[in-house]
Amino acid sequence: MEGMKRTSTHYEMELQGIKKNLLYAGALAEKAIQDVVTSLVDKKSDLARKVIDGDAEIDKLDTEIEDQCIRLLALRQPIAKDLRFITTAIKINGHLERIGDMAVNIAERVLELNELPQLKPYIDLPRMADIAREMIRGSLDALVNEDIELANRVRRMDDAVDKLNEQIFRELLTFMMEDPRTVHRALLITQISKNLERISDHAKGISDMVVYMVTGESVRHQWPGEMPENNDKKR
Amino acid sequence: MEGMKRTSTHYEMELQGIKKNLLYAGALAEKAIQDVVTSLVDKKSDLARKVIDGDAEIDKLDTEIEDQCIRLLALRQPIAKDLRFITTAIKINGHLERIGDMAVNIAERVLELNELPQLKPYIDLPRMADIAREMIRGSLDALVNEDIELANRVRRMDDAVDKLNEQIFRELLTFMMEDPRTVHRALLITQISKNLERISDHAKGISDMVVYMVTGESVRHQWPGEMPENNDKKR
Repeated sequence: MEGMKRTSTHYEMELQGIKKNLLYAGALAEKAIQDVVTSLVDKKSDLARKVIDGDAEIDKLDTEIEDQCIRLLALRQPIAKDLRFITTAIKINGHLERIGDMAVNIAERVLELNELPQLKPYIDLPRMADIAREMIRGSLDALVNEDIELANRVRRMDDAVDKLNEQIFRELLTFMMEDPRTVHRALLITQISKNLERISDHAKGISDMVVYMVTGESVRHQWPGEMPENNDKKR
Repeated sequence: MEGMKRTSTHYEMELQGIKKNLLYAGALAEKAIQDVVTSLVDKKSDLARKVIDGDAEIDKLDTEIEDQCIRLLALRQPIAKDLRFITTAIKINGHLERIGDMAVNIAERVLELNELPQLKPYIDLPRMADIAREMIRGSLDALVNEDIELANRVRRMDDAVDKLNEQIFRELLTFMMEDPRTVHRALLITQISKNLERISDHAKGISDMVVYMVTGESVRHQWPGEMPENNDKKR
């Protein structure tokens, strides 16, 4: 019995280890998004370069988390909810790694933009980035606390980011049509906006997986409004 | 013994079932890419609408494949190479589902473009689409035949698509700067090009997983040129 208890505790520690690494990867991803946006707003290109260099750490973590998951699957053969946690962790890990890549995409555009005269004050991009970061943090909090309500709240936040992206796109389209000299800068800004929108999609994907982990129900191809528990919140 | 043999055969059949569904999802994804591009080149908007409607089938298959993988993990507790196959299948499934989403993104842009006068003959986009489709087919062939050489060939093809995307972007930037009336159409075309580039990234991701499955080595954060076995092919 003593031996079994020790094994079980060790197993719990391995699960915790995966969770901790996911949280760490999430924190790095959040920080990368914050830094690229600061780098743009304050014209600090050094910070953008740091984000590009820092992606190696997210990639390393990605490999490590995947190894942990596969080792656990192989050695412990988890079942039921633990199994759902591991498959969820593999997916969440993939989302976080992609978010890191997108922060690098943004950093590359920022380096170009910082060399050109500023087209307009940056107001909507930092707002989008704030929401995207809140979504990442919220979805990982939801994972740790198995909080479906929070996960669903994150899933609904994706709409706001989509709308901001659409709005930025329309606005810059007007700029470009009115003055061809704005084309290059406007394009770079739409690309940053698009990358932030994709980041929020990935954060939504993390929350989708949390709902699946807790309930066993797949909601990946459902919109939050379609869920029975949210019918009262539909507008 | 008889019983064990039956069980093992049934287990093999389940693994085969996952493989078949992945191939089917890949064929649907390939067809979707072919159809959206035909829809653009031949101005057949009906075909683009069909692609948008058809994505539900890819999504359904995505859920089904994931269920199959998790059921197998739970009930059979596979080890070693079979376990690697299942984790690979989960990842490949995710890539194929995203490719389907991107075909839908393209279809939406095509519907807009088909309502506008054609900006220029479409030559590079069909070429990109052909390479992307070849990459999807190649990566799934590599999966079925456990063919690392083919998987690495697919991984290297990604470069050609990146270059075409870059070339299209530069060309359309010139259009937009020279004539603001081209901005809307040029933007839609760059978005299609970008989606094709991302599709080829996902196809490369599938091949990365095939290399992992066969060798147990993760190459996801390595470029094909960095692999020792390809040093002789470096240019």
